[in-house]
Amino acid sequence: MSDPPGAIRLLPIPGLPEVAPGTDLAAMIREAADAAGVALDGRVVVIAQKIVSKAEGRLVRLADVTPGEEAKEIAADHDRDPRQVQIVLDESTRIVRRGNNVLICETKHGFVCANAGVDLSNAPGEDIAVLLPLDPDASARRIHEALSTDGTHTPVVITDTFGRPWRDGLVDVALGSAGLAPIKDDRGSRDRIGRELLVTQPATADQLAAAAGLLMLKSAGIPVIVVEGFPIEGDGSVRDLLRDPATDLFR
Amino acid sequence: MSDPPGAIRLLPIPGLPEVAPGTDLAAMIREAADAAGVALDGRVVVIAQKIVSKAEGRLVRLADVTPGEEAKEIAADHDRDPRQVQIVLDESTRIVRRGNNVLICETKHGFVCANAGVDLSNAPGEDIAVLLPLDPDASARRIHEALSTDGTHTPVVITDTFGRPWRDGLVDVALGSAGLAPIKDDRGSRDRIGRELLVTQPATADQLAAAAGLLMLKSAGIPVIVVEGFPIEGDGSVRDLLRDPATDLFR
Repeated sequence: MSDPPGAIRLLPIPGLPEVAPGTDLAAMIREAADAAGVALDGRVVVIAQKIVSKAEGRLVRLADVTPGEEAKEIAADHDRDPRQVQIVLDESTRIVRRGNNVLICETKHGFVCANAGVDLSNAPGEDIAVLLPLDPDASARRIHEALSTDGTHTPVVITDTFGRPWRDGLVDVALGSAGLAPIKDDRGSRDRIGRELLVTQPATADQLAAAAGLLMLKSAGIPVIVVEGFPIEGDGSVRDLLRDPATDLFR
Repeated sequence: MSDPPGAIRLLPIPGLPEVAPGTDLAAMIREAADAAGVALDGRVVVIAQKIVSKAEGRLVRLADVTPGEEAKEIAADHDRDPRQVQIVLDESTRIVRRGNNVLICETKHGFVCANAGVDLSNAPGEDIAVLLPLDPDASARRIHEALSTDGTHTPVVITDTFGRPWRDGLVDVALGSAGLAPIKDDRGSRDRIGRELLVTQPATADQLAAAAGLLMLKSAGIPVIVVEGFPIEGDGSVRDLLRDPATDLFR
């Protein structure tokens, strides 16, 4: 039985090797997708931030960090390693909230998330922190361009798991994108009874991220998912998704 | 070429009729899935809130609403219909923020969202507002049980599109669930290098909602998506996903 029209498939790419600083992710993904028999043209490649950061060498050894006074104070308040806190402060423009042993930070990219996205899980070693890519949109574009050769088009979305206010649990969100519109602007289109839809703007890059996240459970070690059947439109960066702080009611 | 192991398919169910108060959604979904050749056993059925609300008669005619003083004041401040505002207030326990012509409300269910989820788009008529189901977890459980007969198991997730702080655009989130654990508790499991993962709790019901949302664009009129290949575990309600207000840094 074939899929109904409009079906989407989320395809995990198995067999990816460990990533180290300097790894050519586009070449690695193409090779693994070929081996798995997964086509990339016209599909979206969703990549977990962790391997992008590792490939880009966004790693800090805790032993190399000297915490300042602010980091020491915050660490003492929250029972944290002051060197970890220093790394978080270095990645942040400000702390939006702190409490419950978590620092909600605004990163230099403009993301609001716990610990400025600095993570110790699945790091290459016990005392190494993995930072977010410096410019995830640029990372996505480089990989998108490397995968889109010979007239093919393979959008790329780079994702991370973020917590959120009001709800427990983590969902994957887009940190970077290239080759598709991360937000679909349906304003001005009409609903089924012809009334103008004023505020329907699906954040498609985030929905792609969350969909891929269903397959990206950390312990499974599947950091690349190919999305097949999603109607690709437009182009843009995740920066387009960030709410203007002036109109944000929660900072 | 067959899908790689672990692949997930998102299958839209076409041909669903218009829903009216009293419609038997489980029977309607089963019939349409059969017609589309989509099996339901072991699959997750994701249903847009709007048709659940319509089936449950959660409709209010604006002409029947008499706005009170608070609704009139808020409506004047934000250039809104005072009757709409009254409906929003009736659905809310409190207003968390207001500004930018939006009311961020805490609903009686404990959701925090714009306008308490009250919506005029795709309503059955020009002056009719659609409210969220009274108890979306109970709605999900009724449909789950009606679909899970003869030893089959078909979890149900009921979803709506919500905005969020810090990012523009809407993503689909779970309002109700039954037949699966809406949040996967990976705390205590270990990452790939054996370190304990302390806070990895994927909000699977929300990720399923967002994935289905890729196919649920309002104007397409596809309110039911079947998710095939997702490893179903546990059971629970979306209430389990709501953060304890006492530990929430954003209310």
